Amino acid sequence: MIKVQADEMMTYLEEVFPQVRGEFAIDRLDDDLLIMRLKVQERHLRPGGTISGPAMFGLADVAAYVATMARIGKEALAVTTNCSIDFMRKPRAGGDLLVHARVLKLGRVLSVIDCLLYSEGTDAPVARASLTYSIPPGAAQAG
Amino acid sequence: MIKVQADEMMTYLEEVFPQVRGEFAIDRLDDDLLIMRLKVQERHLRPGGTISGPAMFGLADVAAYVATMARIGKEALAVTTNCSIDFMRKPRAGGDLLVHARVLKLGRVLSVIDCLLYSEGTDAPVARASLTYSIPPGAAQAG
Amino acid sequence: MIKVQADEMMTYLEEVFPQVRGEFAIDRLDDDLLIMRLKVQERHLRPGGTISGPAMFGLADVAAYVATMARIGKEALAVTTNCSIDFMRKPRAGGDLLVHARVLKLGRVLSVIDCLLYSEGTDAPVARASLTYSIPPGAAQAG
Amino acid sequence: MIKVQADEMMTYLEEVFPQVRGEFAIDRLDDDLLIMRLKVQERHLRPGGTISGPAMFGLADVAAYVATMARIGKEALAVTTNCSIDFMRKPRAGGDLLVHARVLKLGRVLSVIDCLLYSEGTDAPVARASLTYSIPPGAAQAG
Repeated sequence: MIKVQADEMMTYLEEVFPQVRGEFAIDRLDDDLLIMRLKVQERHLRPGGTISGPAMFGLADVAAYVATMARIGKEALAVTTNCSIDFMRKPRAGGDLLVHARVLKLGRVLSVIDCLLYSEGTDAPVARASLTYSIPPGAAQAG
Repeated sequence: MIKVQADEMMTYLEEVFPQVRGEFAIDRLDDDLLIMRLKVQERHLRPGGTISGPAMFGLADVAAYVATMARIGKEALAVTTNCSIDFMRKPRAGGDLLVHARVLKLGRVLSVIDCLLYSEGTDAPVARASLTYSIPPGAAQAG
Repeated sequence: MIKVQADEMMTYLEEVFPQVRGEFAIDRLDDDLLIMRLKVQERHLRPGGTISGPAMFGLADVAAYVATMARIGKEALAVTTNCSIDFMRKPRAGGDLLVHARVLKLGRVLSVIDCLLYSEGTDAPVARASLTYSIPPGAAQAG
Repeated sequence: MIKVQADEMMTYLEEVFPQVRGEFAIDRLDDDLLIMRLKVQERHLRPGGTISGPAMFGLADVAAYVATMARIGKEALAVTTNCSIDFMRKPRAGGDLLVHARVLKLGRVLSVIDCLLYSEGTDAPVARASLTYSIPPGAAQAG
């Protein structure tokens, strides 16, 4: 079911999104689970020793993109149409942020991805997010 | 109802969030409506002449924060607990991104803010978002 | 832009959804705004003189359906794919529940509808909801 | 951590919400997981052999309520403030609807519950929902 493996996906990601080069890594990518990390840097931080909301959103969003693209192939297109996110605990600034992403649905036109975000080394999730990606009709042929 | 005016709010924002200094401006802040802008820069862009999801999320989030803090006062605290966002159209890279934010509820413990995002100079919204901020009990006395 | 007017839409609704016959009415349906009402009955109530969450969700959902179908035509299909709803104030049990629905996007495959819910005769919204409807490809030809 | 067991919770539920008497059952309630079922009846159905959106929302909502109340105690209060729900597959009309609910956060003022909904006997979830319940300050003393 995984058409594009972690290394190839990562190379592709840095190629199409040069703005985020060096920010993300893929720790695991298989049928059951995708684990990605945000390599937390100064610009992701906020006062009080925490990580910004946009940085957390960005990690969930890139994970949903990777989980979808790994299954539909790099020639396809996929754009975020919806995200709902709950911020539940303050993430720690002194460590990476991890996301565990699971594909709940992979349809012809929509994928739905469930994400739990963790501060590395802690058990209680700092946030949860669900994202819908739209897969434009005919996109697979476009590349 | 507005306790903190636009200029004072902007000064406060740049002081507490030095990481985003120079990114945002307040175009209007009154009882009916808050208009803020993201001064779009290279790092907000994505391939295809568009603006990143995290940049759009970040603009909605800061607007919900400003709309809430302007009413409860700078001594208070407010943290995002939930955001739901729909991405509806591709924003233009060649112009600022605007948000129109309205306070739907300002309770003792929660505020709910509704946001519409626009590419400057266009009529159809590129995204909508609703955000909930939690106002910790006793926060007003904390400052 | 409105292909199916209020009376025809109402007749259609009661025909395809016999389970909710008599529950809803359309007060206004034009390009700018759809106003619908839930004729509140015993089964919609909850203790403490209020209206149930599912009844509020149901009103927002039917309004998003009507707003979409009125524009794409009765021969088409549309199914809810996502709803985000904020419950902000306790609705009154002793009166109808109104929804003001606006179409934020009507694309080829998705529509996005924004809803504000009110207890009749009051100004502050009791809930807000945004809904996404998926319009299956080729659906318009199916009828 | 569970203060109110399944039987006692069910009795309480039917007492405070007489309108839904006989609709729901608790299959499992422990620290890890709550499983509830909607005993699907004629009024929950929709044409095409499926179950209505409000019925699915209602099951997720009652599960989030039960998961929260079982932990904070029956003397407390809890009201839904937010729900985000993704409808992913058509549920079957000819069987009960199940929800698997997990508590992601139980704070002093907010609980966050994650729900997956299934048609009994099938593996792929028909919907996912996340709900936030607000626990009014001092509510625990109110009963």
